[in-house]
Amino acid sequence: MKLLSIGTVAFDALETPFGKREKIVGGSCTYIALSASYFLNKSGIVSVVGDDFPQEMIGKLESRNIDLEGLQIKEGEKTFFWSGRYHNDMNTRDTLDTQLNVLENFDPIIPESQKSADYVMLGNLVPALQNQVMDRLGDKPKFTMLDTMNLWMEVALEDLKKVIARVDLLTINDEEARLLSGEYSLRKAAKVIMKMGPKFLIIKKGEHGALLFGEDEIFYAPALPLEEVFDPTGAGDTFAGGFIGYLASTDDTSFKNMKRAVIVGSAMASFCVEKFGSERIEDLSLEEINSRVNEFKKLTDFDLNLALV
Amino acid sequence: MKLLSIGTVAFDALETPFGKREKIVGGSCTYIALSASYFLNKSGIVSVVGDDFPQEMIGKLESRNIDLEGLQIKEGEKTFFWSGRYHNDMNTRDTLDTQLNVLENFDPIIPESQKSADYVMLGNLVPALQNQVMDRLGDKPKFTMLDTMNLWMEVALEDLKKVIARVDLLTINDEEARLLSGEYSLRKAAKVIMKMGPKFLIIKKGEHGALLFGEDEIFYAPALPLEEVFDPTGAGDTFAGGFIGYLASTDDTSFKNMKRAVIVGSAMASFCVEKFGSERIEDLSLEEINSRVNEFKKLTDFDLNLALV
Repeated sequence: MKLLSIGTVAFDALETPFGKREKIVGGSCTYIALSASYFLNKSGIVSVVGDDFPQEMIGKLESRNIDLEGLQIKEGEKTFFWSGRYHNDMNTRDTLDTQLNVLENFDPIIPESQKSADYVMLGNLVPALQNQVMDRLGDKPKFTMLDTMNLWMEVALEDLKKVIARVDLLTINDEEARLLSGEYSLRKAAKVIMKMGPKFLIIKKGEHGALLFGEDEIFYAPALPLEEVFDPTGAGDTFAGGFIGYLASTDDTSFKNMKRAVIVGSAMASFCVEKFGSERIEDLSLEEINSRVNEFKKLTDFDLNLALV
Repeated sequence: MKLLSIGTVAFDALETPFGKREKIVGGSCTYIALSASYFLNKSGIVSVVGDDFPQEMIGKLESRNIDLEGLQIKEGEKTFFWSGRYHNDMNTRDTLDTQLNVLENFDPIIPESQKSADYVMLGNLVPALQNQVMDRLGDKPKFTMLDTMNLWMEVALEDLKKVIARVDLLTINDEEARLLSGEYSLRKAAKVIMKMGPKFLIIKKGEHGALLFGEDEIFYAPALPLEEVFDPTGAGDTFAGGFIGYLASTDDTSFKNMKRAVIVGSAMASFCVEKFGSERIEDLSLEEINSRVNEFKKLTDFDLNLALV
């Protein structure tokens, strides 16, 4: 099946308790596309960079069989830049700088060859642009998935609600679920959010795993307890890319298959945080991915038949 | 197998966002014994109360087939009293009042019939008393489990380390694991703590589930996502009681069986928080417990065999 992903391709400057990076490639679409590429060939992206974007990274994305026809390269302009510093607990961060650059006038043009994508991933981006992409798609895709963040809940709530109502699945973190719903209990928050439109909801809880909500079902995927989280940047996007990449590759949107996709996404995210930026997910072997998925199985597997007194 | 549990039997005054209770029965030993009683008959307790302790509760404990020979009732003295208020997130609480009363001069006398217990649960209590109980046991029990809290890490660390070195399994929460080990990463914290003696460690993460660490193995049990946590008091003790009750009833201390015991403990704890105090776990049906355990299975179950591109 064909997958199309929309989001940012960016430069990031990062500071974690383990070190600093001045200018590395990041952006939601970069992580999504890299992560999905292990499950699908020739998935397309729609994004924009300036002419300062390194040819080396273009080469890396192409070598992972990602279709870059929809990646606009703007002559004389600069790539979107984000800079952040993580706190010691790695769950919270401060944004130090944001330079929109090419994103300011981004017109998300979908190549003709991509308009019929069956699976569409709307990575974190201004909600107005996510809506525009939905408008421009051909027939309604088989499955659409949306990622967003607290910023848009604060500054673009109406646009965000509009796009939430149009997708099949929304993925956000626990803090964002509470902000969006006004409910503290995640189970109650899920009810409120699913009334906004999406039939499925994933609430990401970082080191505490992820919850998948369907109409009458819940699935709880753990996170792998890691010795160190080196850099959490892109973990959510990598999760989303692994999730939708697996879903599209199997072309099965049943709840049962989504549970598998959550495990795949969690496994991919567990790699992402092991090194700075996207370094760790640029060049994984299939053996590594298989073995990580098996770690998840082992981590949660139990058999129990109670014989009570 | 025979189980002996040591801990407090108390009066609690509680305040949660859902309401208040002025004086209800609580205490680590109460929750442990009630929870274990669904898996074992005639398990014993060692604890102390004053003559203000309600006969009705004695009757309830007896009706759950708990052996009360080791429960001292001190004439003219008052039962231990604790009062606390939970914050809105239900994960943190303030202690408003603590009156030691009968606990001040508590001499934990183990009835002769209980000294040969195969399984021993040291519930949360002053570490010096936990050590005293270990001294007074006959042969080394087959399996000993210890619960404690941050307070003892702050005011009685040497005694606490001594008892930690003597038990097979320690159970604490994530915050306490970080405090005790000086490590933020729970995986690193587990390594440090297990060097202190215990072969097994359970780190409880409240609404985020629990981690069981063995020598080279980890198991992650989720918590059931609940619509409301009504009152978290006793959830950790109820977990411990369900865990050791199941372990003793099956008399199998393999890692595989401990994983099952973690699920049983988590299921029992998920009942505990649904009502104030111990109300919900005083009178569960076996059908309720079976069905709750099945909810845990459904919540985490997945099958996945990757066929990668």
